[in-house]
Amino acid sequence: MDIHPTAIISPKATLGNNVTVGPFSIVHDNVEIADNVVIESHCELGVRNQRTGDKPLVVGSNSHIRSHSVLYAASSFGSNFVTGHRVTIRENTSAGKNFQVGTLGDIQGDCVIGDYVRFHSNVHIGQHSIVGNFVWIFPYVVLTNDPHPPSNVMQGVTVEDFAVIATMSVILPGVKIAGGCLVAAHSSVNRNTKANTIYAGSPAKAVGETSKIRLKDGSRRPAYPWPKHFKRGYPEEAIKILESIASDNA
Amino acid sequence: MDIHPTAIISPKATLGNNVTVGPFSIVHDNVEIADNVVIESHCELGVRNQRTGDKPLVVGSNSHIRSHSVLYAASSFGSNFVTGHRVTIRENTSAGKNFQVGTLGDIQGDCVIGDYVRFHSNVHIGQHSIVGNFVWIFPYVVLTNDPHPPSNVMQGVTVEDFAVIATMSVILPGVKIAGGCLVAAHSSVNRNTKANTIYAGSPAKAVGETSKIRLKDGSRRPAYPWPKHFKRGYPEEAIKILESIASDNA
Amino acid sequence: MDIHPTAIISPKATLGNNVTVGPFSIVHDNVEIADNVVIESHCELGVRNQRTGDKPLVVGSNSHIRSHSVLYAASSFGSNFVTGHRVTIRENTSAGKNFQVGTLGDIQGDCVIGDYVRFHSNVHIGQHSIVGNFVWIFPYVVLTNDPHPPSNVMQGVTVEDFAVIATMSVILPGVKIAGGCLVAAHSSVNRNTKANTIYAGSPAKAVGETSKIRLKDGSRRPAYPWPKHFKRGYPEEAIKILESIASDNA
Repeated sequence: MDIHPTAIISPKATLGNNVTVGPFSIVHDNVEIADNVVIESHCELGVRNQRTGDKPLVVGSNSHIRSHSVLYAASSFGSNFVTGHRVTIRENTSAGKNFQVGTLGDIQGDCVIGDYVRFHSNVHIGQHSIVGNFVWIFPYVVLTNDPHPPSNVMQGVTVEDFAVIATMSVILPGVKIAGGCLVAAHSSVNRNTKANTIYAGSPAKAVGETSKIRLKDGSRRPAYPWPKHFKRGYPEEAIKILESIASDNA
Repeated sequence: MDIHPTAIISPKATLGNNVTVGPFSIVHDNVEIADNVVIESHCELGVRNQRTGDKPLVVGSNSHIRSHSVLYAASSFGSNFVTGHRVTIRENTSAGKNFQVGTLGDIQGDCVIGDYVRFHSNVHIGQHSIVGNFVWIFPYVVLTNDPHPPSNVMQGVTVEDFAVIATMSVILPGVKIAGGCLVAAHSSVNRNTKANTIYAGSPAKAVGETSKIRLKDGSRRPAYPWPKHFKRGYPEEAIKILESIASDNA
Repeated sequence: MDIHPTAIISPKATLGNNVTVGPFSIVHDNVEIADNVVIESHCELGVRNQRTGDKPLVVGSNSHIRSHSVLYAASSFGSNFVTGHRVTIRENTSAGKNFQVGTLGDIQGDCVIGDYVRFHSNVHIGQHSIVGNFVWIFPYVVLTNDPHPPSNVMQGVTVEDFAVIATMSVILPGVKIAGGCLVAAHSSVNRNTKANTIYAGSPAKAVGETSKIRLKDGSRRPAYPWPKHFKRGYPEEAIKILESIASDNA
């Protein structure tokens, strides 16, 4: 245990073995931190409001929460969870194993996120979003939810397994991004997409199959499905899944 | 009073009754906090620079400043002011009653903001913006001000009462968004708009009257003017105004 | 020296004369701060990871780091470096003299930035970006680097001297923005540009020479090259360069 003397840890919080908490960080009541977790400086974990009640914040083993992050109560994260700096995640969100969310990420709560998901910096995930496994979302992407704002109608976005949403795209309310899709940068998607298809523009249109994109590494191998060439940073059990996907599509 | 022992409060600051200040927060000289205000952790209130002089930061009663927010001196906020996390508001900005600004909001200063305004997460409000009453601005919207950057010409944006600007839209310098307009997501508005009209695209064009949009709640009632169906989260005196607007348009 | 008693300064850090460190800030090992530097509150300087090794963070004289900023080790900044609030700059980045990066800026590391560069709020600079001298980048601009994400191919963006990229534009991987170009707001640039040319749209097209834009200050002088009319905020030696540029283009 390596708790900095300036950190404020509630006696009602549960900390596993080998947990590090940096200077000026706060861990509130009912926070459950598993083994081998690093919490950097200036963080606040387990923020409560009317919607959280007494439900805990659960952080899985081997996680790393970078500085200035704020995580609410009533959310849970599987093992190997990693954040960038200044991440905000509101209540009632659950994420699976090895979720990574970059600097300035803003997850609004009431979201379900699968295993091995990667959000780059500065994504905005509206309430009621559903994100599958092995999804990639790039900077300044917004998943919206209100079809005629402001209103009480909430239509969350769904992003299926292995889909990729590139920089500065907006997914409009209720839209489903099908498995293996690629949404090109600076697009606005206003209807459901077909699997393994590239969408581009505002409003976005289908512009071909993802398999037609070639790797710019000199090999001219197909760039999609991306598990065929990219496995960096995943844990061993995820690499096995990626390898099986790659061979299915060989 | 509930001032955390790690908080740093200037003896020259004025705090009303029942003010809470969280851990690791700083309240500088000449800050005037009214009654029943909550200031969460890691905030800094009353930052001074050459432009603020000795002018105070004024925060109205029943306000709630969430963690990691930074508010400069020489700005004032009416009662029931609410921020998300990591909000930055520079000097010489005044906002009316019940202003709400979401997580990561960045208000550059020299702005005038009316009553009952709602900014969702991550809006960027350029210097010299003028925002009316009951305006809604959604994530990643930018109000600009320089028609040929960089220059010394400043043409702030004006947004009139009840207007709505959806996600990831840019309003170009000097543009007036007229009352009750809806700017669709991912648009770029380069000229003044007509009231109660929908604008979409880049550059944005008028695509119809807002009244033609129907609520997706099964009722098929008009979605605009939005006060006809949406009053969530407003204080009682605001709801009276919204109800009178709704009946005017019945 | 004016080190707040709550600040945490490693004894292995080197601080010059007249350095100020605000409350709740952290300065790690191997940080080299020159004379007359202000570090505001809630900052963290010199963060290490596997890629930084023991390389120092170097901050030049007369710099000003605003609150909640995070700077990694193995990066260096020339004199008169200025940040807004909550800036994040990762490892292996070097910037020249008088670099200014606004609130919420996110520089991903492995970047080379010239002298007298200005980034407004909330820019995202991908790894392997190269930015020349006197460049201006405005809010919510993203410089990308992966031509088919996710992949191991990295094609950083290059932005040449005096170029200007306006609000909410995306520069696609490997693109070179030539000297003196103006990328209009809300554009997406997918190929190399010609010098002193305006690009607009998504995908962006050349729409004329920058010299055709007239100043909206009543003078109708050309707005570009901008050094002919804009020198605000630059130090004396930079103004001499701007004046020589202005007379070359007279």
